Amino acid sequence: MGKEVCRGIPRSSPVNLMLYDTAIIGTGPAGLSAALNLKIHNKNVVWIGSKNLSDKVTKAEQISNYPGFINASGQVLNDAFQAQIAAMDLAITEGMVNAIYPMGDHFALAIGADFAEAKTLILATGVAPGNVLPGEADLVGRGVSYCATCDGMLYRGKTIAVICGSPRFEHEVQFLAGLAEKVYYYMPYKNAPDFGGNTEKLTSRIAGVTSENGRLSGVKLADGTELPVSGLFALRDAISLGTLLPGLETEGAHIKVDRGMATNIAGVFAAGDCTGRPYQYTKAVGEGNVAAHSVIEYLAKL
Amino acid sequence: MGKEVCRGIPRSSPVNLMLYDTAIIGTGPAGLSAALNLKIHNKNVVWIGSKNLSDKVTKAEQISNYPGFINASGQVLNDAFQAQIAAMDLAITEGMVNAIYPMGDHFALAIGADFAEAKTLILATGVAPGNVLPGEADLVGRGVSYCATCDGMLYRGKTIAVICGSPRFEHEVQFLAGLAEKVYYYMPYKNAPDFGGNTEKLTSRIAGVTSENGRLSGVKLADGTELPVSGLFALRDAISLGTLLPGLETEGAHIKVDRGMATNIAGVFAAGDCTGRPYQYTKAVGEGNVAAHSVIEYLAKL
Repeated sequence: MGKEVCRGIPRSSPVNLMLYDTAIIGTGPAGLSAALNLKIHNKNVVWIGSKNLSDKVTKAEQISNYPGFINASGQVLNDAFQAQIAAMDLAITEGMVNAIYPMGDHFALAIGADFAEAKTLILATGVAPGNVLPGEADLVGRGVSYCATCDGMLYRGKTIAVICGSPRFEHEVQFLAGLAEKVYYYMPYKNAPDFGGNTEKLTSRIAGVTSENGRLSGVKLADGTELPVSGLFALRDAISLGTLLPGLETEGAHIKVDRGMATNIAGVFAAGDCTGRPYQYTKAVGEGNVAAHSVIEYLAKL
Repeated sequence: MGKEVCRGIPRSSPVNLMLYDTAIIGTGPAGLSAALNLKIHNKNVVWIGSKNLSDKVTKAEQISNYPGFINASGQVLNDAFQAQIAAMDLAITEGMVNAIYPMGDHFALAIGADFAEAKTLILATGVAPGNVLPGEADLVGRGVSYCATCDGMLYRGKTIAVICGSPRFEHEVQFLAGLAEKVYYYMPYKNAPDFGGNTEKLTSRIAGVTSENGRLSGVKLADGTELPVSGLFALRDAISLGTLLPGLETEGAHIKVDRGMATNIAGVFAAGDCTGRPYQYTKAVGEGNVAAHSVIEYLAKL
């Protein structure tokens, strides 16, 4: 449902959409490395993610194996990255990509309620924290949504559940509470706030979904409780890669790539933790570099 | 010939040879990145190369795409690497690996006139500057040598040719001049010195070899001249990968590796420019990181 609504817009919208050379999804070390190289090569790039860059980097207590930084805290490395972004005049489009639509010769990206179009993609999304719920992928657009802003209106006056994967999505829970009749929410982290009113904080994890006639009908909690709901908003730092881009070949939780960081889809490249272990900042920057150079080659052949 | 002489020693030498977990060959960014990770994992490593690290890095005028360093000169990056090497207490064995011998469950390395043995290898040699001469590989140990110290004595009183690929080999040309009857030498760089005496500086490049009965008989210059010589010392910053380790699978000038940086030989990994383009410091550190983690996994299974 949410998915269909989003899907209609890029197809029917001839308005003011710049066709970028590349969309880089993710502002961790892999995304930064790719962005630096594409900037130097004067490519027209939309770089989507958090202006705070990677929480994982920032929170690292000590990084001893990043060449050039001696036992640096994650904050020190992050500050260096931020200074470089400013010095190189790189712009970050704050937002999360909810879906990607192959459009033949380019890709359309739903970024919250906005859109962008690009000839090529670099997926540098990191690995999804936690697993997708069993059955969740089949119900995307049929009761399961990843974007409160896009799809919230569809659940006006209804009962919904929300997985709020990070404090930065808490305002979206409150946004949804302003629309829905009742909001059950689960936050998999400490000091989860209690919003009161028509919301109910779950103490047991949302562990599964139920469906009727191919639509979501409820959620199952880890303690066995079943709650009937019309919608489930799964607000996580990373969208499951399988649901993000239809047809993208994955191996377990990772995107399958070759040595040039090309995926199975022409024009789509990937870099960093999303391509597999080891989960290392140094690996990520290396792969971001290679992905950018592969994009440059790919664009030259178009 | 030279090769046979070297080859005899590790086989017959039970003396004082520590069996390292890993030998890292090369002190550029890929080698450094691997060394950092193996140190953190408490592996017993011999790291072979130049204590000056990579000339290529040091001479770089400006590096704009290394994440964390803003438009740094190569010297700045090199200084940061050197400081990290000191802080992490990493030791470099100054020298050049002239040959590697698979010994069944480990590898023996000829490092100039010294030897080392290791269970695994990380090849981070960079790409050989310039091409190997046509026919050169077939004559290694049969008139062609890569090590003046190892093989110089074999050419006492004879006429030899030397390709001196870098100023840091100039003292080896003089060493050879003290042994041989006559030394022709070619230096592919500006301000090549004139050693006089029994040496003759060639102004035309050494472009090929001639052979008789499977042994080197002379060298061919680019201007068409042929000079009869008994030996050719090819002193270059990097040994041709094909001749360094018998059976190593290459693709053109590069070592073939998989996504885990494993080569076709069990226990042998590679990283950096030697695995292919793009030739980038950031790619190199990423690959060094991955190679080190692959080594750690490999050692755990032994």
